[in-house]
Amino acid sequence: MKKPYYAVIFTSVRNTTDNGYSEMAIKMEELAKTQPGYLGIESAREEIGITVSYWENLEAIANWKQNADHLAAQIKGAKDWYTKYYVRICLVEREYAFNKEPIPNK
Amino acid sequence: MKKPYYAVIFTSVRNTTDNGYSEMAIKMEELAKTQPGYLGIESAREEIGITVSYWENLEAIANWKQNADHLAAQIKGAKDWYTKYYVRICLVEREYAFNKEPIPNK
Repeated sequence: MKKPYYAVIFTSVRNTTDNGYSEMAIKMEELAKTQPGYLGIESAREEIGITVSYWENLEAIANWKQNADHLAAQIKGAKDWYTKYYVRICLVEREYAFNKEPIPNK
Repeated sequence: MKKPYYAVIFTSVRNTTDNGYSEMAIKMEELAKTQPGYLGIESAREEIGITVSYWENLEAIANWKQNADHLAAQIKGAKDWYTKYYVRICLVEREYAFNKEPIPNK
């Protein structure tokens, strides 16, 4: 990705009931991808969940946070799904990759 | 955590054989915790693995990268365990938390 860009690290602990969570997670990921300044997203969950989304600048992150559908999901998340979460907004200063696979043409 | 501090986002795709990986992952996490400037670590793996470690400054990150046991693990990782990985070194600019649980005294 072209620097400078930002990473938002979202770490969370979920309760044990799904209660619409999986559906909303997919919906929010799809919605994030349509936002201006969106660069990418990566997620994994075991004991904790970690989702890292990548953005062109702080304005794009602020706009996504204030998106109406996303705000509704955040409120529902705090009420129904998350025991706790932590958000860190970070400037990516350096990066490097290792890849055994040939990089596909896109 | 006290700002400024850094996050190292390590995202990876593993092959399907363990071949000593799990044991080494635990050993490296324990070793990281003993390094100067270490602040914390969080991990989850599903389709991809995401490990985020937190450090006081860039010097601490550079020292950990050059640690002899860690270097040996990195070489073995590229040879035996990872199909690909990506490392991003990031300055944490903002953070906020949500917690339904009472915060324990430490």
